[in-house]
Amino acid sequence: MATDDLTDVHPAWLPPEAFRPLGSRRVEVYGAGTLVETVRHEVDQACARYGGGDDGRSVELVLALAAAAPAEVRAGVTPGALGAEGFALCRRGGVTVVLADEPAGLLYGLFHVVRLGESAFAADRPVQLHRPAMRWRMLDHWDNVAVHPVMGQVERGYSGGSIFWQDGRARRDHARVRAYGRLLAATGINAVAVNNVNVHQTEAHLLTDRLDEVAWIADVLRPYGIRVHLSVSFAAPVLLGGLPSADPLDGEVRAWWAATTRRVYARIPDFGGYVVKADSEGQPGPFGYGRSHADGANMLADALAPHGGVVHWRAFVYNHRQDWRDRSTDRARAAFDHFAPLDGQFRDNAILQVKYGPIDFQVREPVSPLIAAMPRTRLAVEFQVTQEYTGQQRHVCYLGPMWSEVLRFRLSEQTVAGLAGGGGLVAVSNVGDDPFWTGHPLAQANLYAFGRLAWDPELDPVSILDDWISLTFPGGPDLLRQTLHEMMDDSWLTYEQYTAPLGVGFMVRPGHHYGPDVDGYEYTPWGTYHFADRDGIGVDRTKATGTGYTGQYPWPWSEVYESLESCPDELLLFFHHVPYGHVLHNGSTVIQHIYDTHFAGVERVAEMRSAWERVTGLVEPALYARVAERLDEQLRSAEEWRDQINTYFFRKSGVPDAKGRRIY
Amino acid sequence: MATDDLTDVHPAWLPPEAFRPLGSRRVEVYGAGTLVETVRHEVDQACARYGGGDDGRSVELVLALAAAAPAEVRAGVTPGALGAEGFALCRRGGVTVVLADEPAGLLYGLFHVVRLGESAFAADRPVQLHRPAMRWRMLDHWDNVAVHPVMGQVERGYSGGSIFWQDGRARRDHARVRAYGRLLAATGINAVAVNNVNVHQTEAHLLTDRLDEVAWIADVLRPYGIRVHLSVSFAAPVLLGGLPSADPLDGEVRAWWAATTRRVYARIPDFGGYVVKADSEGQPGPFGYGRSHADGANMLADALAPHGGVVHWRAFVYNHRQDWRDRSTDRARAAFDHFAPLDGQFRDNAILQVKYGPIDFQVREPVSPLIAAMPRTRLAVEFQVTQEYTGQQRHVCYLGPMWSEVLRFRLSEQTVAGLAGGGGLVAVSNVGDDPFWTGHPLAQANLYAFGRLAWDPELDPVSILDDWISLTFPGGPDLLRQTLHEMMDDSWLTYEQYTAPLGVGFMVRPGHHYGPDVDGYEYTPWGTYHFADRDGIGVDRTKATGTGYTGQYPWPWSEVYESLESCPDELLLFFHHVPYGHVLHNGSTVIQHIYDTHFAGVERVAEMRSAWERVTGLVEPALYARVAERLDEQLRSAEEWRDQINTYFFRKSGVPDAKGRRIY
Repeated sequence: MATDDLTDVHPAWLPPEAFRPLGSRRVEVYGAGTLVETVRHEVDQACARYGGGDDGRSVELVLALAAAAPAEVRAGVTPGALGAEGFALCRRGGVTVVLADEPAGLLYGLFHVVRLGESAFAADRPVQLHRPAMRWRMLDHWDNVAVHPVMGQVERGYSGGSIFWQDGRARRDHARVRAYGRLLAATGINAVAVNNVNVHQTEAHLLTDRLDEVAWIADVLRPYGIRVHLSVSFAAPVLLGGLPSADPLDGEVRAWWAATTRRVYARIPDFGGYVVKADSEGQPGPFGYGRSHADGANMLADALAPHGGVVHWRAFVYNHRQDWRDRSTDRARAAFDHFAPLDGQFRDNAILQVKYGPIDFQVREPVSPLIAAMPRTRLAVEFQVTQEYTGQQRHVCYLGPMWSEVLRFRLSEQTVAGLAGGGGLVAVSNVGDDPFWTGHPLAQANLYAFGRLAWDPELDPVSILDDWISLTFPGGPDLLRQTLHEMMDDSWLTYEQYTAPLGVGFMVRPGHHYGPDVDGYEYTPWGTYHFADRDGIGVDRTKATGTGYTGQYPWPWSEVYESLESCPDELLLFFHHVPYGHVLHNGSTVIQHIYDTHFAGVERVAEMRSAWERVTGLVEPALYARVAERLDEQLRSAEEWRDQINTYFFRKSGVPDAKGRRIY
Repeated sequence: MATDDLTDVHPAWLPPEAFRPLGSRRVEVYGAGTLVETVRHEVDQACARYGGGDDGRSVELVLALAAAAPAEVRAGVTPGALGAEGFALCRRGGVTVVLADEPAGLLYGLFHVVRLGESAFAADRPVQLHRPAMRWRMLDHWDNVAVHPVMGQVERGYSGGSIFWQDGRARRDHARVRAYGRLLAATGINAVAVNNVNVHQTEAHLLTDRLDEVAWIADVLRPYGIRVHLSVSFAAPVLLGGLPSADPLDGEVRAWWAATTRRVYARIPDFGGYVVKADSEGQPGPFGYGRSHADGANMLADALAPHGGVVHWRAFVYNHRQDWRDRSTDRARAAFDHFAPLDGQFRDNAILQVKYGPIDFQVREPVSPLIAAMPRTRLAVEFQVTQEYTGQQRHVCYLGPMWSEVLRFRLSEQTVAGLAGGGGLVAVSNVGDDPFWTGHPLAQANLYAFGRLAWDPELDPVSILDDWISLTFPGGPDLLRQTLHEMMDDSWLTYEQYTAPLGVGFMVRPGHHYGPDVDGYEYTPWGTYHFADRDGIGVDRTKATGTGYTGQYPWPWSEVYESLESCPDELLLFFHHVPYGHVLHNGSTVIQHIYDTHFAGVERVAEMRSAWERVTGLVEPALYARVAERLDEQLRSAEEWRDQINTYFFRKSGVPDAKGRRIY
């Protein structure tokens, strides 16, 4: 059970030092069950290291299930009010008390105390109830079991190989997987999908004859309250079952899924459920049988329902064979057009998983209107912790502020977080077998922030960043903490400054998606265009003269985005095609704004790099070197972005930079 | 020895029917030796099929080595005058006579008689001497032994796998390799390099512990007069010999190459020699040791000289990490700048292998000025039969006319063919394990034409095309022959019409190089730019205001290309940056020429496809279907080229098409 043998991997936000406040005190743990044992184990480890435990001093921390707690501790909290994962925290009379109704809640309470550090043991605290805003808080691993000839071991992975799979086999690296579960539990994550949503031949077999490999992962993650989910192929009845069809209304097909799912639960009783990418980018799906996506999702939901499982059904369905000549087709419309008419047709344990924006994890997109369009459907919102389009973990790009902006966005009468509460939050993991977990050590903050925001979308993302800094660099001097804060807090906006401007998106190298290529996707079938010519740029998505995409939004957004006057600058080119001389709300022309932001963005990266030089010696050398090397690359890449974008638009517009800076 | 068991592969230009004129006659073969046995075997096979041979009729064809010939046949030809590969042909008194001094000449004479068909046996012919213009007539196979993760089994291969290698091992497909040698001998090819010039780890071992696999190929090709060459790694002494260095002036390194080469010749006595790509696109080379390319080439030449071998040393050396911002660096200059100063320093058995143009096998390039700059060096000119940049064997693109234009080009006082006579012609093969050999059945014509032009660069490429049609479709009706002729004779110019305009080159998708991407290489380190902006396009390579590349040419070309007035239209954008309104010699503006040629090119492809429909039933169904399928793709692709190029330049220039056609 020990995780202490994982000496070659960075401890991230759970270094031993983070346990000092707890481990130096007298702690009592009440309750029983696997997760309570995990709590007890954590406490024992911490106390062994820092001299707490049963050394005879008075009790300073009580961790207890409400039913098991001593009567004096129970006061003020009604057993059953906390839910399966919630907990209550208070401090009075020199004793800090965490109460939970279920073992999972106690685990989250423990990590909350760790996060609070010494302040958990300072002044008295009234009773605070903590309950997760989201039922499912999930990470999807786009990990391939067999190395994909193009996509490698991890599709869109920038942190080495997979922690679960290697060269076609399970790695069974117990210490690493357990340490991962522990880190996730400390942020509040409770579900992990262990394989890529693009389910290739080898991976399809995890559902049946290779189920043991999934069960092994479930066994390792279970003590940290994490349920395992599996991406499955919609064509599994054909691929694995030898049936002639995968038609979701075919009785044989449904029976196959029911029986197969029964076998899964016989092996993994707390199995979470299935994840499905269907009829998308070449994956099979119900369209092939003339059925709807509700038919497809419901078939799997029905197979899972008797066992308490859910299906995450992705709404990422669009025509990836679009003709660039055809300006009437709009990929941004696709998810809404496909799914909004199906509202009310999905089972209660079918979760429609919707990317936060209508395109594909760009640095700036409007919130997907589909999220407001399915009030009678359980929705999950999907983020991308792995930085496919945001610097691929070679660039510092703290995404907490972006996610927070999306989650708090009042799309209808409810915020996005509110609309997703019944389904949850899902994100593509950025973790690999890298010694720092995430390639770029500072990218750990994104993984951490995602979990915290999934638990509580109202948290301030900058405070989360500071929590992460405090935990990861415990006892670090102010200069270090302040430097990290300054490098990271606005890094998302910095990345936006030197890449594709004003919400227009893409402009990345096709295939790997790293670095600039303004026309890289302009004449392709992928539906991601900017339509720049010598006069202007942008995509007209208005109802009046464009693709009508603005009409998918509820009022007032349908009007706000429709009008050039009210459309926010940062999304201008997503919604409108304008001349280069168009004046933004900030007073600058579009072309001058492009020049200005690209010069400014590079300057900010240069400042980041200088700032990092000032903290030499304040962090461990390996981490220092890794960050320094990535900052060099970020600066090189940012300069490349600046020069390509500026040159491209100068060549096209002929408008010189008002400040006379160098454009090639 | 039989090749008749190769029933699953297309017979190309040696179908049994092509042997009818010879095989139906009484033939006498005089002489001895391996290649004479090959001749005798060919004759026996043909006669067995068509009733010729020793059926008692009078002698109608005599094939003889001069020394072995009956006295009456020998008259008029001086033994020794024909050279190792030449032959004399005459017909008088009802007997056709082929005389050669050496067996190889007899083999080429045999295939010449086959090519002549019935006309070899018609009217009397005076004595004609046939001798190859080029000493080495060579095909380079860019075949990898082990499948390369990006480049596959054959780098730039569009005809399936390799005929020599498969999944890391020799295929040892005797029938296929022998049939290949036979086809090549019938065109006059006498050398084959069996592995990719990019020598990866596995392939490096062919030189030493895997030499047996090379020897096997040599054994199979030997009966057709083809010598085997090997691409080697310059770093072989380090990789294979365990030496600390590959410095060409290091005594140990030189001794290693001498000993290694001795072992090669002990195993393959007629081994041809080495091919080397050094200091190019990541391959190791002498620069790493501060030595010149003459030092590198001479080291290998010295190792090969005692055995009669040659080294083909590629001049394809340039900076592939160029900064696109730097307009002073010009990849076109690189080969000349690197190699011209070394003239006179190379050994006599070192052949400098120079691509015909200064960039990289584009559809239109000026002839490389390096070819005229090394009068004291043995030069080979390199072509690309595999259609990397000319449609990848999905497009009909008969390259004979381009090669002929290059070979007959009077670069200095001599033509290119004359300048290369001492070294020869080399081309990258387009052959793979495809049933039609070349993917596109009509691409066989390129392989055929290359061999014929290497033997005699003065041949008319359109006559060669007609020879190929007659041999490949023997007895085909006039409609078929005429249709093939019309589809193919100008197909190179058609391809040029719908792709990159006026010699500017590239504009292909990065990586695979298929299909259009105008800016695909514009901001990359590869040195292939067009510099299009809203006002104009082209690369200024003049001495007056540009990179000075025109100064590398001897007079008059240095002046012809320097001046806008005299620069040929088809190379205008290679040498000059001009406004879109610049008027060409043909009277059109640059922008209107772009529109016109792109519309016209597509129309010609559509005509090709219609033409092919008219010959349904006149060729075997599998071949018909393969060509039809490729023509569909060619038309689709040509339309894509047309629309992307036209749209790109319309967006940039703002100039509408004078004829009002559809531009997107």
